[in-house]
Amino acid sequence: MTRYFLSLAVLALACSISAASARNVILIIGDGFDDQHVSMGRNYLAGMSGKLTLDTLPYRAAVQVETLSPEGTPIYVADSANTATSLATGSITSIGRIATDIHDADISTIAERAIERGIRVGVVSTASLTDATPASFLSHVSSRSCEGPEEVLGSTYYGIPQPACLPDARDNGGPGSIIEQLVTSGAHVLLGGGQKFLAQTTIDGETVQALAEREGFQVVTSASSLANISAEVPLLGLFADENLDVQWRGSDGRIAEATATSWLHHVSDYLGKISEPAPMACEPNPAFGDTPSLATMTRTALSLLPHNNDQGFFLMVESASIDKQSHKRNPCGSIGEIAQLEATLAAALEFAERNEDTLVLVTADHAQAAQILPEPSLYSGYPIPIYSPGLIARIQTPEGGVMRINYATNNGFSEEHTGANVPLFGNELAAELLAPFVRQREIHDAMAAFLLGENAGE
Amino acid sequence: MTRYFLSLAVLALACSISAASARNVILIIGDGFDDQHVSMGRNYLAGMSGKLTLDTLPYRAAVQVETLSPEGTPIYVADSANTATSLATGSITSIGRIATDIHDADISTIAERAIERGIRVGVVSTASLTDATPASFLSHVSSRSCEGPEEVLGSTYYGIPQPACLPDARDNGGPGSIIEQLVTSGAHVLLGGGQKFLAQTTIDGETVQALAEREGFQVVTSASSLANISAEVPLLGLFADENLDVQWRGSDGRIAEATATSWLHHVSDYLGKISEPAPMACEPNPAFGDTPSLATMTRTALSLLPHNNDQGFFLMVESASIDKQSHKRNPCGSIGEIAQLEATLAAALEFAERNEDTLVLVTADHAQAAQILPEPSLYSGYPIPIYSPGLIARIQTPEGGVMRINYATNNGFSEEHTGANVPLFGNELAAELLAPFVRQREIHDAMAAFLLGENAGE
Repeated sequence: MTRYFLSLAVLALACSISAASARNVILIIGDGFDDQHVSMGRNYLAGMSGKLTLDTLPYRAAVQVETLSPEGTPIYVADSANTATSLATGSITSIGRIATDIHDADISTIAERAIERGIRVGVVSTASLTDATPASFLSHVSSRSCEGPEEVLGSTYYGIPQPACLPDARDNGGPGSIIEQLVTSGAHVLLGGGQKFLAQTTIDGETVQALAEREGFQVVTSASSLANISAEVPLLGLFADENLDVQWRGSDGRIAEATATSWLHHVSDYLGKISEPAPMACEPNPAFGDTPSLATMTRTALSLLPHNNDQGFFLMVESASIDKQSHKRNPCGSIGEIAQLEATLAAALEFAERNEDTLVLVTADHAQAAQILPEPSLYSGYPIPIYSPGLIARIQTPEGGVMRINYATNNGFSEEHTGANVPLFGNELAAELLAPFVRQREIHDAMAAFLLGENAGE
Repeated sequence: MTRYFLSLAVLALACSISAASARNVILIIGDGFDDQHVSMGRNYLAGMSGKLTLDTLPYRAAVQVETLSPEGTPIYVADSANTATSLATGSITSIGRIATDIHDADISTIAERAIERGIRVGVVSTASLTDATPASFLSHVSSRSCEGPEEVLGSTYYGIPQPACLPDARDNGGPGSIIEQLVTSGAHVLLGGGQKFLAQTTIDGETVQALAEREGFQVVTSASSLANISAEVPLLGLFADENLDVQWRGSDGRIAEATATSWLHHVSDYLGKISEPAPMACEPNPAFGDTPSLATMTRTALSLLPHNNDQGFFLMVESASIDKQSHKRNPCGSIGEIAQLEATLAAALEFAERNEDTLVLVTADHAQAAQILPEPSLYSGYPIPIYSPGLIARIQTPEGGVMRINYATNNGFSEEHTGANVPLFGNELAAELLAPFVRQREIHDAMAAFLLGENAGE
C-alpha cells in the first residue's frame, strides 16, 4: 500500500524533476528520540499543554523499525547501526552493521549517490563522526566498532574485545576504517566529534589529518575557528576527542537513582518504608564549555552547502546524545539534547522557508529505555511500599511539576534500546512524499525519489 | 495553532452541516494502547514488516495527554478516568474523576449533548460498563470507584477503602452511582460487562435491572441472546459479572516472570549466572468461552443505532483489557485484545464504507508499562549477568521470532501507566478535522464540531 503510494509520488516527482530547481534534503535524526522522549522534551521545554517546534510541523507519521538477525530472521529491537543503514540505504540489515548487508556486501547510500551526481553532502553529529549514525551514510564496514585505522584491526571497550573488520582494512586491500572512508568520501561538510582519530596513522604512514587535507579538507578543531573558515573548500570540523559534551545535566551531576528501602522491607515485600530520590533540577553542564551547539554546526553546514552550488545538497544532522544520555540514565542530559534538536530544527525550517525545494525530515532511529512514570505512584494510597525496581529521577519542570523518569531495562552499566515504532515529522514536502505509516527503509526511498529522482519500485 | 486549525475546520463544517445527511461518529479507544503496544500488536499479528489495519488508515497523529493534580497543577501521567473525561468533554481534570472537574462540578459530555438532540448513543466495552472509560461518556461522579448503588456509599478493593461519592448518591439527592446514571442516560445501546450491578438495589428498592427495564431497555446477559433482540427498543447487554474475559493468554497461563540468578550473583553484581524464563506461545484463553467478541458487540451496535434513525449516532467502543492485561504483566492477554481492536476497526471501516458521513477514530487514553526489549540483550556479549530488574516474557511470534516484553514500572501487584503521547488514527474525515498533533481534549472538540456543529472556539 505504501509502496504503491510511494510509486505514485515518485511518478509525480519524476514528471516534475527535470524542470525543478536544485533540491535539498535536511534529515535530522534524534538518536533514541521515541515518543517517551518526545513527551519528556515537550513537558520540560514547552509544558504539559505546550508544543515543541516539531509539534507544529504539518506532517507526522509512525515508522516501523526493521532489524534482522545475522541469519536474516526478524528481530524486534534495533541498534543505531542497522537503523542508520536502513535510513541511508533503503535496505535492512543486522545489528552493528554499517551500510553492509548480512552477507557483508556493501550497500550504496543516498549520500554516496548524491556525491556521484555532483550534489553536495554534509554530515553533522554531536557524536564522534565515526559513530554508527553518521558512519552509515558514508562508509561500509562489518562492525560499528571499526572507527579508526587502529580499531579496524580489533579493539577493546571497557576491556571487552570488539569486532575487527579485517576485510575492510586498507591493510588487506579494503576501503579502510570508518574515519578513512569518511574523509575520502567526497563529502563537503563533516562536523562533530572524533578528534582523536586525526592523529591515527593509516597504512600509508600518514595521519588521518594529513589524509583529510590531501583530500582537500580544511580541518578545524575548535568552535572559534568556525568564524574563520573558507567557503570555497570542504570542511572537516572535529570538536572533541570522541563524542561532544552535552549541554545539560541533573543538578550537581545527579542521574537516576535507586529507591532506598528499610530493613523491614527485606523481611516482607508488603512491609517497611521506602525513601525515594529527592527531586532534581536540570542545569547547564560545565563540561559543555565552548562546544559548538548542534544548531551552530547546522547553520555552518547550511551556509557552506549552498555556496556557489546549483545542484542542491543532502544534509544529515544527528542529535546523538538523547540516546547516549538515556543509556546513562541521565534524563536532564537527554532533555538538553532534545533542546539542541529543537534549535536545529528551527534553523532547518528557517532555511527551508527561504529555499522552497528543501525537504525537512525529523525522525528517531529506534526507541529507548526512559519511561515517564506517575508522580506519585498510581498505588500510593495503598499501605505497602511501591517503587520502581530500576532507577528513577524526579525532575522539577519549569512550569512547577515533577516529572518522574524510570530506567529499568537492565541491571547493567547501560540501558537497553526498546522496540516501539518511532515518530517521523516533516514539512509540507514530506506530506506529499510519505504516508502516515512507513517502514524506516521507505524514508530513504522517499528522499532518494525527491533528491535523485530514483524510483524505489524499479 | 491547532486551535486555529480546528476553528477553520469548524467554520467549513458549520457551513456544510445544515445540508448534510445524518452524521455518525465511531470512536474506538484502546485502553493503554500506546506505541509500544501498537508495535507489540504489529510484530505478533502482522509480522515485523507487516501492517495492522490501523496502519493503513489515511490519518495518524500524536496526542498529548493532559492531567491535573487535585490542586490544578500539571502532572505527567494519567489514568483512564481523567483521560476518558478529556475525550468525552473536552475538559481536563484530575485522576479518578468521571466527567467532573477538580471542583467536582459535572462537565457535559458529547454523548449527553447528542442524546439531547435526538442523536443516538452507543457505548460498548470489554470492561464492566461502569469502568472509567465507558462511565465518563454518560455519568458524573467524583470517583471511578462509585460503580453501583452500593459502591457509591463507599467500598473496598483488596481490603483497601475506596472513595465514596456521597454527594452523587441518590440517597443524598444526587444522580446516583455510575450504573444508575448509565441506565437512565437515554443511551440506545450499552454492551459490555458488569452484570453484578443488575442485582444491586437502588434507594427506591428496585433492582438496577428493574430500573433499566422501566427506562425501556431490553436486558440480555448472554451472547446467544443477541440473536433474538428487538431492533425497536434500546439494548442493555451485560455478559460478565465484571470485566469480560480476554481471548488469549500465555501458554499454560504463563505471564511475565523474573529472571533467576545464581548464588554467586548475590555476592557480586558482576558474577554468577542467570536463568531466563523460557519462551512462551500465545494460546486461546479457555475462560473466554462464549464471551461475545468486541467486534460482535460493535456489529450489534452498528445494526441497532442506524435502524429507523435519520439523526446519526455517536458510538464509543473500548478494547479495555490491552491496559488491564499489561497491569497484570500478561502480554499475550494484551495482544489478543489488540486483535479484538483490529477486528472491531475492520467492522467500523466496513460500516463507514457504506455510510459516507461516518467519522472513524482510534486512539489510546494513556501509555502503559510494557516495553519491547532486545532478545538477546544488546550487552549479551559481555561476560557479566545482564537482565531486567522487572519481569519479562519472551513471546514466540508466528513469523518465527522471539519478542521480549519487559514490565518494570514497580514492584507491586499491578504495573504503572506511563506518560508518552499516544497515537490517534482515523479515516479521511479525520484528516480534514484534525492536525498531526493534538491535545486529547481537541479530539472531543473535533467530534463535537463534526457531529453537533459545535465550535470549540465559541
